Amino acid sequence: MYPNKKVQDLIGTTVQVEMKGEKYILEGTLSGMDDYLNLYMVNTAEVIDGEKSRIFGSIVLRGNNIVLITPVR
Amino acid sequence: MYPNKKVQDLIGTTVQVEMKGEKYILEGTLSGMDDYLNLYMVNTAEVIDGEKSRIFGSIVLRGNNIVLITPVR
Amino acid sequence: MYPNKKVQDLIGTTVQVEMKGEKYILEGTLSGMDDYLNLYMVNTAEVIDGEKSRIFGSIVLRGNNIVLITPVR
Amino acid sequence: MYPNKKVQDLIGTTVQVEMKGEKYILEGTLSGMDDYLNLYMVNTAEVIDGEKSRIFGSIVLRGNNIVLITPVR
Amino acid sequence: MYPNKKVQDLIGTTVQVEMKGEKYILEGTLSGMDDYLNLYMVNTAEVIDGEKSRIFGSIVLRGNNIVLITPVR
Amino acid sequence: MYPNKKVQDLIGTTVQVEMKGEKYILEGTLSGMDDYLNLYMVNTAEVIDGEKSRIFGSIVLRGNNIVLITPVR
Repeated sequence: MYPNKKVQDLIGTTVQVEMKGEKYILEGTLSGMDDYLNLYMVNTAEVIDGEKSRIFGSIVLRGNNIVLITPVR
Repeated sequence: MYPNKKVQDLIGTTVQVEMKGEKYILEGTLSGMDDYLNLYMVNTAEVIDGEKSRIFGSIVLRGNNIVLITPVR
Repeated sequence: MYPNKKVQDLIGTTVQVEMKGEKYILEGTLSGMDDYLNLYMVNTAEVIDGEKSRIFGSIVLRGNNIVLITPVR
Repeated sequence: MYPNKKVQDLIGTTVQVEMKGEKYILEGTLSGMDDYLNLYMVNTAEVIDGEKSRIFGSIVLRGNNIVLITPVR
Repeated sequence: MYPNKKVQDLIGTTVQVEMKGEKYILEGTLSGMDDYLNLYMVNTAEVIDGEKSRIFGSIVLRGNNIVLITPVR
Repeated sequence: MYPNKKVQDLIGTTVQVEMKGEKYILEGTLSGMDDYLNLYMVNTAEVIDGEKSRIFGSIVLRGNNIVLITPVR
């Protein structure tokens, strides 16, 4: 399965996204994506040591600064 | 919704942009963008620990060094 | 042999992937890839100092943040 | 206004460019650019804590390592 | 001489490759490459302070995370 | 003047190249380049605090990890 196809299947579900640089772990609803893996997420929180810190109503993430994307069970 | 479309919708509004490297959090009016998410912003301030530090009249940000873009409510 | 061809040959096998930033060493089954070396992996664990820490059921890795890919013998 | 167009308008003027990695803040005359925001600058100085340190007669900057470009008023 | 052509000429020989992030210096036989300078190497060792540490039977390196490639005389 | 054109004019001359990550400042003869600013250099030395340390007979540098290129007068 192509990685992009896998991400597309996650639209509408809750995902965790780890960004380059230690502090950025974001958890929220994946709302949109494109071929560069730029992501549009809503109801998103920054998670630090398992705790939610900053809350973002909506957020756009630049694909090249994403390290990994994983579904939240 | 495509991430780029979401950013386009933010033109004319106040956004917060986090750049790679901890020190760059920029808040200002989004004035222009392109397909690479390069941004042109005006009335922009660097925000450190919630305080505005450096002020930029106008500024161009290179898309690949942007981590996230979020509207300021 | 082309690097991408080599990675393609590894689909269905266990690989170790080192990501940019020290903490990301991931070991799991390579399930899919594309031309950018974006990877889709399943049954993946983050390995720190030889110990498995976080477990990811499935995970998508952004190719440009991959440093190296090596088969686990 | 497109970000690249804004940078093009700055050719012939003094700009400040911040590069990835803390030490690189460069100030000089923007002499040329291309679509990747690679820049060619002349009469350029590295600025550290507001002080000019190294002087570069002419310099080429790789676009993807530029964080921001701002006019010097 | 084009850089890519130079690397192509090194196929079948021993090269040293420095990756982004301090710890990755890899020495081995260059077995394949592509236009992005993704490399496929065999009989590769990670070299730390002149000592070989980890050994990789075969390895794929992502081109954009390569800093430099040099022949081992 | 386009940045790439400027670099092309430097072929055959001595240049200093600063790479991402503090330790990489390389000085040598620019022997070849391509559109991505990948560089092929010969008679190259790594310069640390003004002192030449490692010597590279020939070296290929990946363009996206180059911060700046400047002629050595």
